[in-house]
Amino acid sequence: MKAMRIHELGGRLKLGEMPVPKPGPNEVLVKVKATGVGLTVVLMLSTRGLVTQYPRTPGHELAGVVEEVGSEVDGSRKGDRVTTHFYLTCRVCKWCRMGKETECRDFRGYVGMARDGAYAEYLTLPAANLARIPDNVSFVDACVAADAICTPYHACRAEAQVGPGDDVVIVGGAGGVGIHGVQMARLCGGRVIGVDLGAAKLEAMKANGADAVIDGTEGDWSETVRRLTDGKGVEAVIDFVGSRGTFETDMKCLGRMGRLVIIGDRPADVFGEPSDFMINPREILRNMWEIHGSRYVNLAELHDTLKLVSDGRITPVITKTVPLEGVEEAHDLLRKGTLIGRAAIVQT
Amino acid sequence: MKAMRIHELGGRLKLGEMPVPKPGPNEVLVKVKATGVGLTVVLMLSTRGLVTQYPRTPGHELAGVVEEVGSEVDGSRKGDRVTTHFYLTCRVCKWCRMGKETECRDFRGYVGMARDGAYAEYLTLPAANLARIPDNVSFVDACVAADAICTPYHACRAEAQVGPGDDVVIVGGAGGVGIHGVQMARLCGGRVIGVDLGAAKLEAMKANGADAVIDGTEGDWSETVRRLTDGKGVEAVIDFVGSRGTFETDMKCLGRMGRLVIIGDRPADVFGEPSDFMINPREILRNMWEIHGSRYVNLAELHDTLKLVSDGRITPVITKTVPLEGVEEAHDLLRKGTLIGRAAIVQT
Amino acid sequence: MKAMRIHELGGRLKLGEMPVPKPGPNEVLVKVKATGVGLTVVLMLSTRGLVTQYPRTPGHELAGVVEEVGSEVDGSRKGDRVTTHFYLTCRVCKWCRMGKETECRDFRGYVGMARDGAYAEYLTLPAANLARIPDNVSFVDACVAADAICTPYHACRAEAQVGPGDDVVIVGGAGGVGIHGVQMARLCGGRVIGVDLGAAKLEAMKANGADAVIDGTEGDWSETVRRLTDGKGVEAVIDFVGSRGTFETDMKCLGRMGRLVIIGDRPADVFGEPSDFMINPREILRNMWEIHGSRYVNLAELHDTLKLVSDGRITPVITKTVPLEGVEEAHDLLRKGTLIGRAAIVQT
Amino acid sequence: MKAMRIHELGGRLKLGEMPVPKPGPNEVLVKVKATGVGLTVVLMLSTRGLVTQYPRTPGHELAGVVEEVGSEVDGSRKGDRVTTHFYLTCRVCKWCRMGKETECRDFRGYVGMARDGAYAEYLTLPAANLARIPDNVSFVDACVAADAICTPYHACRAEAQVGPGDDVVIVGGAGGVGIHGVQMARLCGGRVIGVDLGAAKLEAMKANGADAVIDGTEGDWSETVRRLTDGKGVEAVIDFVGSRGTFETDMKCLGRMGRLVIIGDRPADVFGEPSDFMINPREILRNMWEIHGSRYVNLAELHDTLKLVSDGRITPVITKTVPLEGVEEAHDLLRKGTLIGRAAIVQT
Repeated sequence: MKAMRIHELGGRLKLGEMPVPKPGPNEVLVKVKATGVGLTVVLMLSTRGLVTQYPRTPGHELAGVVEEVGSEVDGSRKGDRVTTHFYLTCRVCKWCRMGKETECRDFRGYVGMARDGAYAEYLTLPAANLARIPDNVSFVDACVAADAICTPYHACRAEAQVGPGDDVVIVGGAGGVGIHGVQMARLCGGRVIGVDLGAAKLEAMKANGADAVIDGTEGDWSETVRRLTDGKGVEAVIDFVGSRGTFETDMKCLGRMGRLVIIGDRPADVFGEPSDFMINPREILRNMWEIHGSRYVNLAELHDTLKLVSDGRITPVITKTVPLEGVEEAHDLLRKGTLIGRAAIVQT
Repeated sequence: MKAMRIHELGGRLKLGEMPVPKPGPNEVLVKVKATGVGLTVVLMLSTRGLVTQYPRTPGHELAGVVEEVGSEVDGSRKGDRVTTHFYLTCRVCKWCRMGKETECRDFRGYVGMARDGAYAEYLTLPAANLARIPDNVSFVDACVAADAICTPYHACRAEAQVGPGDDVVIVGGAGGVGIHGVQMARLCGGRVIGVDLGAAKLEAMKANGADAVIDGTEGDWSETVRRLTDGKGVEAVIDFVGSRGTFETDMKCLGRMGRLVIIGDRPADVFGEPSDFMINPREILRNMWEIHGSRYVNLAELHDTLKLVSDGRITPVITKTVPLEGVEEAHDLLRKGTLIGRAAIVQT
Repeated sequence: MKAMRIHELGGRLKLGEMPVPKPGPNEVLVKVKATGVGLTVVLMLSTRGLVTQYPRTPGHELAGVVEEVGSEVDGSRKGDRVTTHFYLTCRVCKWCRMGKETECRDFRGYVGMARDGAYAEYLTLPAANLARIPDNVSFVDACVAADAICTPYHACRAEAQVGPGDDVVIVGGAGGVGIHGVQMARLCGGRVIGVDLGAAKLEAMKANGADAVIDGTEGDWSETVRRLTDGKGVEAVIDFVGSRGTFETDMKCLGRMGRLVIIGDRPADVFGEPSDFMINPREILRNMWEIHGSRYVNLAELHDTLKLVSDGRITPVITKTVPLEGVEEAHDLLRKGTLIGRAAIVQT
Repeated sequence: MKAMRIHELGGRLKLGEMPVPKPGPNEVLVKVKATGVGLTVVLMLSTRGLVTQYPRTPGHELAGVVEEVGSEVDGSRKGDRVTTHFYLTCRVCKWCRMGKETECRDFRGYVGMARDGAYAEYLTLPAANLARIPDNVSFVDACVAADAICTPYHACRAEAQVGPGDDVVIVGGAGGVGIHGVQMARLCGGRVIGVDLGAAKLEAMKANGADAVIDGTEGDWSETVRRLTDGKGVEAVIDFVGSRGTFETDMKCLGRMGRLVIIGDRPADVFGEPSDFMINPREILRNMWEIHGSRYVNLAELHDTLKLVSDGRITPVITKTVPLEGVEEAHDLLRKGTLIGRAAIVQT
């Protein structure tokens, strides 16, 4: 089978030929139909310590069809249309068993980093990681649900707890995850202020439901946020960018009892400087602010997200599709920062 | 001034002439501009023990302009456009001070029952009960916010905790409160199944955002709910009707960990039989169901609701307006059950 | 190996000889050291539909040593001291993956009912169900943690949400589960009012931390509860008995915003009449009461419970131990209702 | 009447003679019986902007007897034994009305800073701020409840959400507030690790329920915390000290999903350097940590706290009492950092 593989830290992917893998007793073999391509992959491939051996096939946001099931698998069948939770976890520790599997005590890494992923024609996966795709959801829409949509679902519902009328700032609201963050915060009833860079991205955020948009290239946007909220500030800021500069501005946007939700940070390996930032305990105290880290989802939340797509409440934003061999083209757009929404590899 | 007043339990209102009242030191005098007219008023006027003396001027859902402020009032000024929280509470007990003022330990009754209300040209109110109306919200829209919209806000957000993708049944979804319940559950991201009686009401629920509607005249609708949810049942049922029959059907609609939210019940004084109903503890346990009573809101939630109307997220549904003298005409429609949405008295 | 087995619905157990079972690829073989014996077993053995074939070895509350592990098991090793979660679940559905595995969509029954349990020298178990026993906890204490202690942990913390100063009624507070409910509610900071029948049981509740005790044989105890709380009523009632009579009295004990937590109900198969009871929606609404079903725990909560025993915060109450062959003696005490706390089979 | 008054920023108090004040229509006159003396007062008197005019009588943590009530007061009577919430708030804004009055939009400052406090024989107070003292609680115990005990009640229950078995670090656990934090975290079922400076303070924390204690003079204590928790880290750190150094160490103590609760910070005016500290978003994200600001309580929580003292669940720790004229002696001990627990002025 064909696979696009990485051979060294931060290197470009090359097309290779490999045998189709065999599933273990608790695994399945999946024929890949669609694979999401986002900045996370690009950044992770350049961050030391995530890829456990070279060469490696990336690709963690996928949809496909079960081709073969291991001898001990009883929840999946050949022919199932599936997507996957991409954390490789122990399934028995306290955290795995309370719906907080991203905190697994015996975490074994990510699909596409610690084992081969879906930039290939086939891959094997632990059956425990699968989620069935509703009949009316296409493969390409489903693959995006598995990270770019479910991640803001957890962030908005469980961490920011966005509800009707809440003012919410989405930082990086035109990116592959952020654009669904804009939709999701709106779906929760929030009044969404999207922040991103340049006219095209502002337009995209508006088209996805942002009530107001701010161009981050114009400097400190917290004053605009204050103005848009009559001085009150916002109930939540959800930051999909994660640099020191955005975090510091985020804090200035928060109103009383506001929440800053941290979704990602810019790895120092790639950006050259850490995203650590200074906070003022007196302000946190005075305003009863909260800062929350929001890390992906549990499998139940992935099920919920697929239902949202199936019900038409969230519309996956895939602005570019490429064949397997063309994935570096999408990576290049991501490196340049010109992609709006998500890209995806589509295979037939 | 003119006032429509009740002279005996369940009697019809008569137009009377009274002196304009004087506000106490912690009170304000309000010139009434709009007053909501709903089934609650009709039922309360027929329920023993609520009106504390006759004659009495009803009307608890109101909007108007502050005409005069008492000597100790510092949060309101002449000319303020205001609506009101209609519970008369002590303001100092534990419950009043934790945002649960509807549970006030020293509760003194309702505006329009325990003191004269807004079926009149003027009324006095405790300044502590007022909420300012945003500039872009009309009086008639604001009066409805003060009960018919805020009540489902608390029920959906705090009790049912409706979030994206949750299936929610709204029972009595075409009534004055229920119709805003349909909008509110949808605003929270829910998938709404509205239940009411007859084609016109089903149509109204659809127009207000219901994803599916069921005609309750066709008998037990829990099977339709099961079918619409692939057998799963719903995350929440919010019941705005409150009879034994609806409650018993509600329980059959709940999915795992489902919540029944009780908003009101049909008073035995009026309907001749109690709404008490039988529950099965084994089913509650097996499904980890919850039953919640949801009683109106606190003043902060009323503020939030007014923002929702101001932001255009909720559209008040007022299908009939009458002059002060014509309020019994609206009451008659409510008694007949033919009114969809809310009626309101409008005064200039 | 020896096993005490049931041969017909509600029958007495008989000693039998069986081959030691072989674990499947995802299972382990456990040598049993201690098995809890409680009313739940007795009632379940008399309730139609739970035992899936006869003869069957009961026993779901156990502690032992892993003797052999299946080929696919990587979280357990020979020699591990373990106890078990006793629900047989699918591990892949939404509910299993959000820490609500007792609501498993593809539930396969209970250890000791749907597969052979721990009234035997050995049993096999899914490795996914195991929890390691802390070194300083004995087998007999650990087995009790696996149901009789963890069940009130969930009920008190997650459902009743008992916190410092809350008044809590524990109904059936001298039983095997209830006695740990008394300890647990106290540990959460609650002020505990224990209800049970007869002087010996009242004494036992006091010895386990109850601040006040009431003899349920003296009739309606809600008045005593009101008196003990200066008329206020309690924040929570946790009912470990589950008859119509106790539920109806429970409701009369609740103060504003009080919670009734249903842990179990008396099966009609055994007690001849259903435990269904009538509730008054007007009172639920007026007081913003909640009714919650509380069903066992997830595996994470079992881990937490074992830590509580290890830390000495909860003291397992085992008042009678018997050899395997003597378990019917303990069952007889349970049938008579004279056992306080838990019994256990101890094997060497 | 006599009063100890401050005449300039950070100055020493001097005894003065003043007329007994008259209560306004919504106020009461209180004869002071006991006044808490803690580090907060000392720090606040040295922080620019809090005292609104000189001379000023400090003292916000008080207990006394109502001597006279204003004309509009109906919740208090002459002879009532009372303590007070010490924030001067508007009572009508959204935050005041949702039980978050410390976030009042129109905040008017603190009793003893923005109006005269209880370092005097009498003071007037808004009747809305009063809480009745249970009969069995002494004045001196009640005054301490009004800040030093209620503050950790909110921090432990609402912010850290300490429950059975949670490991909790209390930083500054021998101070006037921290010592009750140790008791409170223990009361919630937590396993408490107390941190403070020197043998006497460690001893005091043990005597108040700490399961383990660490001497902060020996440097970075996070390693000891890791060791005491088998490497896991703690569920919560509650920091009653609030310097950059403690906050940075706090973060290193947190386990997965841990919470840092910020109660206070060291004012730069006094300590010469800000307490701002650097946080690592990657770690926050990876561990799903939360940082919460915890600011005092609402009046309902003060009621709850008084019940805890009345029920004997929390024992006020008053290690020094002084007459009104001797309050600077207690202040000196606080400045030196040698006082354990709380001091109080007692008047007859």
